[in-house]
Amino acid sequence: MKKLKIPEKTIERLPLYLRRSEKLHAMGENSVTSQKFVRDLPGINSDNLRKDLSYFGNYGKKGNGYDMSRLIKELRNILKLNKETHVALVGAGNLGTALLTHQDFNRWGFRITVAFDNRPKVIGNQIGGILVEPIQDLESTVRKKKIEAGMIAVPADSAQSVSDSLTSAGIKGILNFAPTLLDVPDEVKVKQVDITSTLKELNYYLQE
Amino acid sequence: MKKLKIPEKTIERLPLYLRRSEKLHAMGENSVTSQKFVRDLPGINSDNLRKDLSYFGNYGKKGNGYDMSRLIKELRNILKLNKETHVALVGAGNLGTALLTHQDFNRWGFRITVAFDNRPKVIGNQIGGILVEPIQDLESTVRKKKIEAGMIAVPADSAQSVSDSLTSAGIKGILNFAPTLLDVPDEVKVKQVDITSTLKELNYYLQE
Repeated sequence: MKKLKIPEKTIERLPLYLRRSEKLHAMGENSVTSQKFVRDLPGINSDNLRKDLSYFGNYGKKGNGYDMSRLIKELRNILKLNKETHVALVGAGNLGTALLTHQDFNRWGFRITVAFDNRPKVIGNQIGGILVEPIQDLESTVRKKKIEAGMIAVPADSAQSVSDSLTSAGIKGILNFAPTLLDVPDEVKVKQVDITSTLKELNYYLQE
Repeated sequence: MKKLKIPEKTIERLPLYLRRSEKLHAMGENSVTSQKFVRDLPGINSDNLRKDLSYFGNYGKKGNGYDMSRLIKELRNILKLNKETHVALVGAGNLGTALLTHQDFNRWGFRITVAFDNRPKVIGNQIGGILVEPIQDLESTVRKKKIEAGMIAVPADSAQSVSDSLTSAGIKGILNFAPTLLDVPDEVKVKQVDITSTLKELNYYLQE
């Protein structure tokens, strides 16, 4: 299996397939056609689905549709969701607090194990069971605890310097909530969660 | 200008072009080639840019690159960011609080003017200057105040019923933070901000 050849757009759709297959499975559907499967997935058609899954093997039996429990298991495997991933959060403001207390991460094995801030009134607080540490300790703590991913929830103008600290501490993946694009080494993957841009996009349709 | 023919992917990229052109403009760049423009935009190449902008008119002078101040103005126009959009927030938990106090919305004309929750301990609180009202009042208040968009920041299992209330009150756009896909009438546009799915996607690259 040559992972490097799989398009980024395919990887982006896999978590949506996982969510959809879990929902169908919970509804008691065990064998689902590609047409039915994509019905609630906006912007994805059954050709996308078949093409995407073909990168990872042969999931559907001809005429029988896809086996939901098998698909769930395989998607979890492909996305490596069967082991724990340790995450560092930087920026324990309102958004950071929401992330620290978010219930949906744990069941997928994502554990925010350390949190950092630069504000004296926040440092030392426990949020969601996690102690907020001073930003100066970021590199040494991340290195020592072998943290694999970072979430950046700081204002736009400090996001790049936080990103630099995370990557120099060896982090390989960043989820960036700051409304700015980060400059990172090639081996580091950044995903942007850009709420304001999504709102602007929605605004286009509102005014039509 | 036939808006209906513009691909969704194009609309999705316009806010990124706006952010990029503002940054270049702030750096003192007034005329920028498409190659340079897309350099910091992951997954977007100069062909995408030219094609996308061609839907809205002719922005670049041959050999001169794009005029940043003109592009900023036109993108704001296309995305209709020169008027205020009134937004209702549903769910005033940690994420809702982060959204109510988020500084980046105001400068784009997005104003959260009403907020709702169903928990007695939250109803009546002022968050970011906005009073949290009981969820029972959602439909009448949204209708009366002519709110145009909704943000759903409630748990997954109540997101669909909140969405139903918003759309029956006449809302035409929803930004959904709940990890579930919503079933809405055709004329309503939903954008999903799916933090857990983005984290799963990032996880794929982490483990490579």
